[in-house]
Amino acid sequence: MQFFFEPRGIAVVGASSKPGKGGYDLIYNLRQGFEGNIYPVNPTYEEIQGLTCYPSLAEVPDPVDLAIIMVPNNWVEDVVKQCVDRGIPGAMIQAGGFAEAGEEGRQTQEALAKLAAESGIRLWGPNCMGLVDTKAKHVFSFVANSIWERGLPSSDVSLIVQSGMLSGVFLIDIMSHGELGVSKVCSLGNKVDVDECDVLEYLLADPETKAVGMYLESIKQGRRFVELCRGANKPLVLLKGGQSARGAAAAQSHTASLAGDGALTGSLLKQAGVLPAHDFKQMLDICHSLAIYPGPQAHHPGRVGIVTYTGAAGIVSADFMENSDLEIAEITPDTKKALREVYPPWMPPANPCDIYPAVMMHGGPKTYNVTVDALCADPGVDAVLLHTFSGGFDLKPDLEHLAQSAQKANKPLFAWMQGTRAAIDEFRAEAQALGFPVFRELYRSVECLNAVFARRPALEVRADEPQPAEGVAGLLAGQAGALDEHVSKQVLALCGLPVVEEQIVSSADEAVAAAQRLGWPMVIKGLDPGLVHKTEAGLVRLDIASPEQAAQVFDELKAVMGPQGQVLVQRQAAAGLELIVGAVKDPQFGACVMCGLGGVLAEALGKAQFAMAPLSRTEALDLISRAPGQKLLDGFRGAPPVDREALAQILVALGDLAYTQPAIQEIDVNPLLVNEDGLVAVDASIILG
Amino acid sequence: MQFFFEPRGIAVVGASSKPGKGGYDLIYNLRQGFEGNIYPVNPTYEEIQGLTCYPSLAEVPDPVDLAIIMVPNNWVEDVVKQCVDRGIPGAMIQAGGFAEAGEEGRQTQEALAKLAAESGIRLWGPNCMGLVDTKAKHVFSFVANSIWERGLPSSDVSLIVQSGMLSGVFLIDIMSHGELGVSKVCSLGNKVDVDECDVLEYLLADPETKAVGMYLESIKQGRRFVELCRGANKPLVLLKGGQSARGAAAAQSHTASLAGDGALTGSLLKQAGVLPAHDFKQMLDICHSLAIYPGPQAHHPGRVGIVTYTGAAGIVSADFMENSDLEIAEITPDTKKALREVYPPWMPPANPCDIYPAVMMHGGPKTYNVTVDALCADPGVDAVLLHTFSGGFDLKPDLEHLAQSAQKANKPLFAWMQGTRAAIDEFRAEAQALGFPVFRELYRSVECLNAVFARRPALEVRADEPQPAEGVAGLLAGQAGALDEHVSKQVLALCGLPVVEEQIVSSADEAVAAAQRLGWPMVIKGLDPGLVHKTEAGLVRLDIASPEQAAQVFDELKAVMGPQGQVLVQRQAAAGLELIVGAVKDPQFGACVMCGLGGVLAEALGKAQFAMAPLSRTEALDLISRAPGQKLLDGFRGAPPVDREALAQILVALGDLAYTQPAIQEIDVNPLLVNEDGLVAVDASIILG
Repeated sequence: MQFFFEPRGIAVVGASSKPGKGGYDLIYNLRQGFEGNIYPVNPTYEEIQGLTCYPSLAEVPDPVDLAIIMVPNNWVEDVVKQCVDRGIPGAMIQAGGFAEAGEEGRQTQEALAKLAAESGIRLWGPNCMGLVDTKAKHVFSFVANSIWERGLPSSDVSLIVQSGMLSGVFLIDIMSHGELGVSKVCSLGNKVDVDECDVLEYLLADPETKAVGMYLESIKQGRRFVELCRGANKPLVLLKGGQSARGAAAAQSHTASLAGDGALTGSLLKQAGVLPAHDFKQMLDICHSLAIYPGPQAHHPGRVGIVTYTGAAGIVSADFMENSDLEIAEITPDTKKALREVYPPWMPPANPCDIYPAVMMHGGPKTYNVTVDALCADPGVDAVLLHTFSGGFDLKPDLEHLAQSAQKANKPLFAWMQGTRAAIDEFRAEAQALGFPVFRELYRSVECLNAVFARRPALEVRADEPQPAEGVAGLLAGQAGALDEHVSKQVLALCGLPVVEEQIVSSADEAVAAAQRLGWPMVIKGLDPGLVHKTEAGLVRLDIASPEQAAQVFDELKAVMGPQGQVLVQRQAAAGLELIVGAVKDPQFGACVMCGLGGVLAEALGKAQFAMAPLSRTEALDLISRAPGQKLLDGFRGAPPVDREALAQILVALGDLAYTQPAIQEIDVNPLLVNEDGLVAVDASIILG
Repeated sequence: MQFFFEPRGIAVVGASSKPGKGGYDLIYNLRQGFEGNIYPVNPTYEEIQGLTCYPSLAEVPDPVDLAIIMVPNNWVEDVVKQCVDRGIPGAMIQAGGFAEAGEEGRQTQEALAKLAAESGIRLWGPNCMGLVDTKAKHVFSFVANSIWERGLPSSDVSLIVQSGMLSGVFLIDIMSHGELGVSKVCSLGNKVDVDECDVLEYLLADPETKAVGMYLESIKQGRRFVELCRGANKPLVLLKGGQSARGAAAAQSHTASLAGDGALTGSLLKQAGVLPAHDFKQMLDICHSLAIYPGPQAHHPGRVGIVTYTGAAGIVSADFMENSDLEIAEITPDTKKALREVYPPWMPPANPCDIYPAVMMHGGPKTYNVTVDALCADPGVDAVLLHTFSGGFDLKPDLEHLAQSAQKANKPLFAWMQGTRAAIDEFRAEAQALGFPVFRELYRSVECLNAVFARRPALEVRADEPQPAEGVAGLLAGQAGALDEHVSKQVLALCGLPVVEEQIVSSADEAVAAAQRLGWPMVIKGLDPGLVHKTEAGLVRLDIASPEQAAQVFDELKAVMGPQGQVLVQRQAAAGLELIVGAVKDPQFGACVMCGLGGVLAEALGKAQFAMAPLSRTEALDLISRAPGQKLLDGFRGAPPVDREALAQILVALGDLAYTQPAIQEIDVNPLLVNEDGLVAVDASIILG
């Protein structure tokens, strides 16, 4: 990928000498900062912006590592072929009019994909705005030249975006406001070849990138993406477009993206430790905070000391921290003693620390210094949130002292700032130079501080390659479609899952004998091939309590089923919490394990969570901890708690089964019952693809 | 209250000639805009800022309608007495050091409250920043003089705030940034006398206030507040500080506020149609939007047409609208036809309307005009959300045309703007002049548009005064503490509630006879006076299916209970969805009705909701619609749906019971069972205060 980021020479095919044209702006942007050779290509001109213009790619002198293609969509394929002939390793296609623009464009894009696969040339785009690298001053993009107005403000945050907006107008906006810079911004477009994985891999190794923000509408190589993310040593933040049904439909027409299963994707990204964002500027704010404080932090939840000049903002900050990765720190007697040095006698020190009365007595700098120093020295405080005002009331703090104090204590420092416009600009510049994040809205400051503590260490991943459980292949051989409940559970039992005791019976007498062996009351089920919804078909009979009843039910079931129908006798498990566990094969992510609540609770409490298989024990425990209804899992109103280790083993086994058996499309264990006896699979279904 | 807002003369007790002192800044602020008489009072000076200074209140000439008291806290009581003597109708006490500052201050504040109650003088504060009225140019506050920098930008939004910050630094901040103005800002402080109700009542009648935003840490007169809010003909938005336990603790030390029960308060504010906010600037943004589009709008959810130049922002906007009061409009064939006039042929018109390709062909103004005109003409579109960029790419729209188009169609128009800093300022000013709201962050624009459609018409309230149900007073007479289940249900039955059939029995034979009359299986319960948790005490026996069992259980229960113990035989209701309904007497709000889910679901699905009694049928139905688990109420997986009308009758009856019986402290019907037979109260408890 390096030839995209650091090419020695760039050919611009479709360069233009007409201001306002993309082929003009691109040349302009290249000339502002790119120090390698720039070769405009266009048979119409001999010279563009003082550079020699070449009639064709073949005539361009060496070295050319990158071609940027600005010609109309119907010429692109031909130009790419010329790139291949010329031996250029990479091409960026910025023009649109491909898969996002109807059937013809889709075919052209497919031809490009084929060309890339066959020739080995890497293609970036089409329908994209290329690459901006503020540190190298590379703008490989036709973005409006106003982007240079403030000289490409830089930071340690790089972005991967599936939207020209984020590498165009958004970038111009944030840069011109002087709030935040970026390191590299990579606009992917339709991802005919180069995708988020390629770029992410590059950025994870890039010394000029400390945090990566992503706006994606689709994830092309799901499994590789999750693997890259979970192994990343840098904070990753993702704004996923198209999470709603209407959003997904809009995404498909935007970059021809299939958004995939939003719930599954969101769940796997949690497994991989990717932090979510929901809006553009918010994503960048979170990234910026994480680039400064990449962590992960030692303590979770983060215990925050709040320094405020207004009770109201202290209270609202405290409210924000409920149910978050943050909590209000309990300050120690030493801290209280230090605060008493500046507090008026009537005011008992507490956190949030309302310093306004102290400011009136001692002024802003001294009061802020004493308070922040005390919080930084407090072992029960993990981070400091400053509320500041510039523009009167003697509230201006000595930012340099505060920043040094926090740095020395190695504690994240965040500031919410209010003030007059000129004062705010000055304050922001000073804070940025001192290296801590500042925000205009209180909630955003807490949200970003939260992200710092929400980031957790990477989960241990599976070291061994899962092996198929013995006997499973034999049971699956020759089968197709949905396996019946009994066979499904036999497969699960071979994988070590606890399944309910049961027996197929072929006569009423055998049913009674089985029931006597398994114990009353019992359950009798009719297994009719092809009929998945047994309950709805009246084929599940509970509470069978006597031999007479057993015999009668046997006959009834036999009578309503087809000739292939079998009767299954089960021990009736004691009531308990119903879980649903299982596995799916997703086209993007492959084998994934599911864990959630069953029955009415599933509807009530929210969706099951997923993790990509194979799972380590740690990942399985994490999956359980992400499932809805944690209070219920912990044992509710005297119910037995779930044995999380045993459940984790089941989830690992389900993942291994789905991962090692290509034929398996779906596994549902519903319910997996939690009762006094532990965990037991009461019903199950395996579907082969 | 008018003497606070429009006094003819103001005496400033504690005026100062020392710049930097509150008594100086206040005089400065008054002189900038107040056109009535200003009378500094301070025996030390003869003149302050060119005004005659009086040695005492007694010597101040008429007219004096308001005294602003800036003296230290221990002198305040004496000054208020002088105000009473002087016949001044209102005093604002801006100094702190009262209930928020320990026991001594609390006692002084109590003395002030007594003084107000006895003399009739209205006291505003203490510990507050008074009043700012931008239209009258009244700054009755010691706020820093920088507030005048941009001449007090005005709007139709008034604020009631229990925090000096919001009427001080926050105000300076927003005004200096030129984003938003305000009409009146009223800082309440400790509310020794004047409270949010007094001020809200004034603002609801104020022609210069079109929407009211509130930051409150406590609600002093809960019942009056809810009544005012639900009768309001203006949009109300509330940021409630202290909703979390830690936030509530901080609120108590800030303005000596008891935050009250956060869940109850939040629920009653929903009943009253108050819209929630969570952050300061966000509250003002929402208010500003509602002042422009006060509604309520005719359609819910609001169907939004999105005009975007970037697929990504269209997609993310669509994502934001899931589970909101908004949805993406389905545009009509006519609208599509109009869009085809400017869209390239390959691009099928759809909403969100991505106009970038059309802008490249026709330029920004024409494309925006055609698109917005089409959406405004579309009967399926209720509002238009514009995405705009100023600073290149030919994207600048003709704002005047767009504003006129939306105004003519009477559809809310919102804009999200990106751009270079100078262009943004210009854009904002132009949009403000044209009267539509613009936002820097996409989520905020959707959030504020959502608030416009979240506002619903006021619920019909109860016209009649509830009367006690016949016989109830007799049953309650002489009782105290917790009534037993049977008596509780007798009371409820008198109020028209469906209760389970049951009978008190005094022998095993009577138990069997009762069971035979009520039908098997049955439930037998032991009622032991003072024992509320029957289940935990083993006094509830289910599934009694035979006379032998019934007789045995009777004897067992009798044996474990005290001599006062009674045995209750009930028909066992068929299983179903368990609701909890009831009523509480809250110290702030009086009788309130509760509705929620019972059993495990209560824990899982969230808290019960409340409404202030007495309830109208409409309010009761609204309460049901706010309860958690709506899918379950609608009948889940074949379960019968809740009869909402019947449930509403029950809620109305419970409210009337609690409202008309002063002795009742709490009523719990748990469970109120929903099954094939309808609704039935299976267990209940009434607690007398």
